Amino acid sequence: MWNPKATERGNSRSVIRELFAYGETLRRTAGEDAVADLSLGNPATPPPPAVTEAFRTLLATEDPLTLHGYTAAEGDPVVRASIAAALSRRYATEIGAEHLFLTAGAAPALTAVFFALTEAPGDEFIALAPYFPEYSVFATVAGGVLRVCPCDPVTLLPDTDALASLIGERTRGVIVNSPNNPSGVVYDRVTLARIAACLTARSREIGHSIYLISDEPYRELVYGAAEVPYVPSLYPETVVCYSFSKSYSLPGDRIGYVLTPPTCPRAAELLRAVAGAARTLGHVCAPALMQRVVGAVPDARPDIAFYDRNRRALMQALSDLGYAYVTPEGAFYLLLRAPGGDAVAFSDRAKREGLLIVPCDGFGLPGFVRLAYCVAPAVIRRAVTILERIRQDLQ
Amino acid sequence: MWNPKATERGNSRSVIRELFAYGETLRRTAGEDAVADLSLGNPATPPPPAVTEAFRTLLATEDPLTLHGYTAAEGDPVVRASIAAALSRRYATEIGAEHLFLTAGAAPALTAVFFALTEAPGDEFIALAPYFPEYSVFATVAGGVLRVCPCDPVTLLPDTDALASLIGERTRGVIVNSPNNPSGVVYDRVTLARIAACLTARSREIGHSIYLISDEPYRELVYGAAEVPYVPSLYPETVVCYSFSKSYSLPGDRIGYVLTPPTCPRAAELLRAVAGAARTLGHVCAPALMQRVVGAVPDARPDIAFYDRNRRALMQALSDLGYAYVTPEGAFYLLLRAPGGDAVAFSDRAKREGLLIVPCDGFGLPGFVRLAYCVAPAVIRRAVTILERIRQDLQ
Repeated sequence: MWNPKATERGNSRSVIRELFAYGETLRRTAGEDAVADLSLGNPATPPPPAVTEAFRTLLATEDPLTLHGYTAAEGDPVVRASIAAALSRRYATEIGAEHLFLTAGAAPALTAVFFALTEAPGDEFIALAPYFPEYSVFATVAGGVLRVCPCDPVTLLPDTDALASLIGERTRGVIVNSPNNPSGVVYDRVTLARIAACLTARSREIGHSIYLISDEPYRELVYGAAEVPYVPSLYPETVVCYSFSKSYSLPGDRIGYVLTPPTCPRAAELLRAVAGAARTLGHVCAPALMQRVVGAVPDARPDIAFYDRNRRALMQALSDLGYAYVTPEGAFYLLLRAPGGDAVAFSDRAKREGLLIVPCDGFGLPGFVRLAYCVAPAVIRRAVTILERIRQDLQ
Repeated sequence: MWNPKATERGNSRSVIRELFAYGETLRRTAGEDAVADLSLGNPATPPPPAVTEAFRTLLATEDPLTLHGYTAAEGDPVVRASIAAALSRRYATEIGAEHLFLTAGAAPALTAVFFALTEAPGDEFIALAPYFPEYSVFATVAGGVLRVCPCDPVTLLPDTDALASLIGERTRGVIVNSPNNPSGVVYDRVTLARIAACLTARSREIGHSIYLISDEPYRELVYGAAEVPYVPSLYPETVVCYSFSKSYSLPGDRIGYVLTPPTCPRAAELLRAVAGAARTLGHVCAPALMQRVVGAVPDARPDIAFYDRNRRALMQALSDLGYAYVTPEGAFYLLLRAPGGDAVAFSDRAKREGLLIVPCDGFGLPGFVRLAYCVAPAVIRRAVTILERIRQDLQ
């Protein structure tokens, strides 16, 4: 007698959350050292010093009524101008405050965009495997349907022929997530241009726009020479969803934005539809103190060396142990090919030893497990020890 | 080609937000002294000292990874236990952490509850006039329909005969908001018992539960001898939605909760449906730092004397000027009967003088304007001067 969708979703936690909760319990009962929790994208490196300093300065010097008061629904104009200026410098473009709508992180940003782009129930969105499983929840908020485009089994980049054939009359948007969760793959310029060409051709054929929804929480997390192109420069009808969670190590504090860039036709109107969607979803304003913090330091960068050390240590150990994996160029996830091919069985085997890793069946990529290496180096070492033990057992 | 509901709601800002934006512009162009903005429930008294101290202490002493990290979707267990213990002491009942789901304020709490209680599109919710206009947006999130029950024209308390006849097969819930926005009226124990009796009788007749959704952001704001009863003690099937916005002067920071109390049958299951609804709406966790702040000081109280001085000054001046008004016993709003009977015209007239007050047509109470007296005393004085000038013009 309640909403069946809500009841089902409240009773079925995501696999990631399930593992994380299990880890919390195990830590309490068996101690910290019994667990190597690589389940969750929860940064283990503190916020950049400038961010911590911004908290202290704002609380010490700002009028509390301004600091904690309501802002406009789209966010404080000064904060939006600050973020817009930082983006404009970085991408050599002209983004203004009017192109930004601040949200409580990427999840509500994506939800509002899916809501705004669903003209009628049954409209379709396409995720490119491997993809973040919560997309399948967010996309349905206004009756939308999520379809999944397969990837090349070697590069894990999207199969654009398959994408072209998935696009139909009801297609409203395609979600790109690069650097990718769970693969760590970064879509290069050529790949994005291929996707753009596909969307341009197909939207001409079906007679309406197909939006590219660029989900970019890992944008700042890239290693070596990898480049994360500015997606709207390759496909004008792009809507960017961003979160400061990962780069500022503030995942719980919920601050991010929707950007409808100047390249996007009728960008202002679309952003108003996003605002209307957010209002329907219970948005009043993004957390005000958090708005001021990111507005004060819109250019802070994560401790990329921290993650890179973990990445290299993990790759070296996996190579030494003879595990097959995908070299990640971005984000803080690494895909391991499950020995035997059954990712759920391998994840369960690891769980019995206290190693928490996520099977990627729910990400549209069976046969792989995801290792979130955004953890303390000691946790990486514990994980490697367990993986070594499992390897010996398997031989 | 976008979602028509989202587009419409993005283009039609609420009357309150419209007036507030107008005030911001007027302040910039004509100066602070040109405006007496009584449009918005934005507290003008800083957070209680204990709250400000909690921010400083947490930032200075807590591990930033814990402070800013993800919490469980329902909120940090220690924080929920702290709030539950405070509520249990206050109401002499046994609320546990498991009865609470922390949210980013009351708006997403209400939205998730409406979503969870909508079994099928077309299900109905009843607001008791006068009521907060955004209910009509929130209630429709999963296809629900909001109906409005009229009030007694003198007491502004709900007409329970009308309520009984409005309840039908499709009725899922009734929203009570006491202390009331916009009237400042506090529903006494007798009134709540009358509503409870009505719901009990009608739910027996229609054969399913009717939930009482108690929206209580103004619970801590009462004057004189007025009492705000614990609603679940009068009607078991109550779901409480709370926000710390008003009592802690943190409206922009977005922290609140849904409480399914122990009185409520299958409280745990219902809270899971609320969790599933929140997940669908883009909820990950309530802002983490804010969780810790309210968890550290779950018992802080607002500066009620501040609001009471404004309330008394305003009532005295209105009496002296011969305006008719409703004596508020709670919240920080006062209803003025618009001279001539046309509230929109009176609000427009006031706006031309720089006095921003909200016509209550959208609240289901034509003929009245709402004065939010949660402002600096100087703003009250400016408002009174303008009201005096308008009064002279009208004579």
